[in-house]
Amino acid sequence: MRAVDVIRRKRDGEDLDSEAIRAFVAGATDGSWPDYQLAALLMAIVLRGMTRDEAVLLTDAMVRSGQILDLSEFGRVAVDKHSTGGVGDKLSLVIAPLAAACGALVPMMSGRGLGHTGGTLDKLEAIPGFRTRLPLGEMRDALRRTGCALIGQTEEIAPADRRLYALRDVTATVESLPLICASILSKKIAEGIGALVLDVKVGRGAFMKTHADARRLAEWLTHIAGRHGLNVEALLTPMDVPLGRAVGNANEVIEAIETLKGRGPRDVESLSVRFASRMLRLCGQAASDADADAQIRTALRSGAGLERFRAVIAGQGGDPAVIDDYARLPKPARVDEWRAPRAGVVSDIDAELVGRAAVVLGAGRDRADAAVDPAAGLDLVATVGDEVDQGAPVIRMSGAAMAQFDAARALLDRAVIIDHERPAPVALVLESIAAGGPPRA
Amino acid sequence: MRAVDVIRRKRDGEDLDSEAIRAFVAGATDGSWPDYQLAALLMAIVLRGMTRDEAVLLTDAMVRSGQILDLSEFGRVAVDKHSTGGVGDKLSLVIAPLAAACGALVPMMSGRGLGHTGGTLDKLEAIPGFRTRLPLGEMRDALRRTGCALIGQTEEIAPADRRLYALRDVTATVESLPLICASILSKKIAEGIGALVLDVKVGRGAFMKTHADARRLAEWLTHIAGRHGLNVEALLTPMDVPLGRAVGNANEVIEAIETLKGRGPRDVESLSVRFASRMLRLCGQAASDADADAQIRTALRSGAGLERFRAVIAGQGGDPAVIDDYARLPKPARVDEWRAPRAGVVSDIDAELVGRAAVVLGAGRDRADAAVDPAAGLDLVATVGDEVDQGAPVIRMSGAAMAQFDAARALLDRAVIIDHERPAPVALVLESIAAGGPPRA
Repeated sequence: MRAVDVIRRKRDGEDLDSEAIRAFVAGATDGSWPDYQLAALLMAIVLRGMTRDEAVLLTDAMVRSGQILDLSEFGRVAVDKHSTGGVGDKLSLVIAPLAAACGALVPMMSGRGLGHTGGTLDKLEAIPGFRTRLPLGEMRDALRRTGCALIGQTEEIAPADRRLYALRDVTATVESLPLICASILSKKIAEGIGALVLDVKVGRGAFMKTHADARRLAEWLTHIAGRHGLNVEALLTPMDVPLGRAVGNANEVIEAIETLKGRGPRDVESLSVRFASRMLRLCGQAASDADADAQIRTALRSGAGLERFRAVIAGQGGDPAVIDDYARLPKPARVDEWRAPRAGVVSDIDAELVGRAAVVLGAGRDRADAAVDPAAGLDLVATVGDEVDQGAPVIRMSGAAMAQFDAARALLDRAVIIDHERPAPVALVLESIAAGGPPRA
Repeated sequence: MRAVDVIRRKRDGEDLDSEAIRAFVAGATDGSWPDYQLAALLMAIVLRGMTRDEAVLLTDAMVRSGQILDLSEFGRVAVDKHSTGGVGDKLSLVIAPLAAACGALVPMMSGRGLGHTGGTLDKLEAIPGFRTRLPLGEMRDALRRTGCALIGQTEEIAPADRRLYALRDVTATVESLPLICASILSKKIAEGIGALVLDVKVGRGAFMKTHADARRLAEWLTHIAGRHGLNVEALLTPMDVPLGRAVGNANEVIEAIETLKGRGPRDVESLSVRFASRMLRLCGQAASDADADAQIRTALRSGAGLERFRAVIAGQGGDPAVIDDYARLPKPARVDEWRAPRAGVVSDIDAELVGRAAVVLGAGRDRADAAVDPAAGLDLVATVGDEVDQGAPVIRMSGAAMAQFDAARALLDRAVIIDHERPAPVALVLESIAAGGPPRA
């Protein structure tokens, strides 16, 4: 099937059949479709849309564009968690070892930060020696040792997605429900998992700004994953304010370890328990929701989750002593504080602006190929609801150059609101959506 | 202005301003926009559309992407004709010398055939020695000598259009009113003309299949040309049946010469007079419509048009003796006939199918870089309205290989209808549209 004919059909609003979609994905994978034909079709998909059936076919073709991990030797259902991206989101570092400590098999493939949202890979790489680029053979060894592997996307997994994603970024074709779903799910399905928990973030610091948009994304994701035979559930969680108190890389590793020690911020701990127990339930390692919850809480309280994280770090070449000695993590060249301009209550902290301040300080990146400073970032000394005196430190900034601090400070001036009224508390999970449809939480 | 931002704006349905459109066209011209970004924007333009104001800006930017001919030395308004493409359309070969013989200055830049429609350049190149690739300096010499130059698009004229057109062809982004108008008019305006007559063909053998679509194209073209200061008029002409009796290249040259000798088919002669007189009127070489018509008819009857064509051929390196001796034109390797399967009246000949038969025989091309056989083509021995006996030759086919003839014959079996009723005559011009709006013919 000629590329130009596939493009024309989508341009004219027709549904693409399996043959057309396979031609497109094969063309992206083997290079036989030049970039300009891929770009034209991507724009036609953005503007004409795709049905869920087309998105299922697209996801399937992208899964098959590379290897699919065969984890049958482990004799149990593998499970993963995916987040659509937020600010201060270190949940993966907590829940992967927690779930693995309870017997779950977690082949977790993560991404890097882009724009104001952070990435699990960048955080893990703040641990000295930690290797995220494991060949699939070594990944399997890691799973045998600890039941958990925390790695980046490899060349072998969904190569069509790598080419298409790079192209979407520079052709304004990122914002498309079917393309987003196929990109996320093709990589997950190729991991060989049988269960998946999705963290669909909602709010100004998230990709989806409204509850309705986030619900729609969650419905599509769970529908497509369900059609691929996964046990799947999406939790909609708010992302208006940063999650926890650390936004960066090394400092988020510390916060994750503190959470595994039972000393983490309330929101990080609660969501970690919630997500890890859903993983346990969906992969069949718990007999009931209550059992899943009890197992995870026990692993947290006993320190089994912490010890599993230590083993994961050691197994992937990292320095396990960071668990007990945070001074072994990268240290910032310079630290400064954003102080309260007046006394009052911290009534709001804008997650997106804090995320942008993190980019400015070097903790994140605006271009996919840029490096990050693992020691840079922000720590919320006070967070929403806390009372502060005039001049008291509210946010600690870590970075390298003076100019970065000035730019970050200007963003924080807009991000932090100090008022006199305590804001109403916000639910940690807004809604739960399973493959069958949208049952409310 | 970053390419991705321009693409995003059009994707989201915003109008592009002058700065954005200039960035796009400059990026296409100097190569600073990669093909995939051009392709994404082209698809967004196809699906989101452009206003007439945007199309005016786009045309202007494309004109300025290269040289603009300065014909002020000639002291009179240059005029051109453009056809949207048909089957058997050899009008340019007749009207350029006719108008030039009456004092018009005609710097005519033509294109090649593609798909079922023929191209003036391919026809001219059937004349032994005829050079269509004249540098602009030689083109100016030709205009000084004969008032007429018949050439192909040069590198210097509207280079942005060359890159964009090549890309549109392979990304299914040809069918867009603003892109079509900008492509056609940027080349014409850069010729330095002050007047333009457009032949907008309508029907199954034309790009525009319906009267409404053709009228809309004519309105856009005349509006944009008018905004660029051109005296412009569009004639809508039917293209359901081939024009004249010859479809090909060498045979169309013969038919054009026969027309200039006063022995051409009625439709070719009538339309030639109509178009040439509109050219004369719009460029100011005639005081009234009646004067223009009289001048052209005189040039036809006196042989002045024929002699001008002879001079044009000689001036551009061609063999002027073809005017008197058609045997000097390329001869086909093989000739065969499609004969009437029954006695009756030829009630219909499908122009598109005949055009496709011409491609099959080698007279046209489906890929822009393919060569044509100048001697190949079809001649209608009988045309619509003629009575034929069973077994009488209706269409003479010229080509090279047996397989071509079989394939052409299969197309002609569907193209030609022999019936018992004489079809109603069709008007040669359906409507005339000038820059101010659509005054009916």
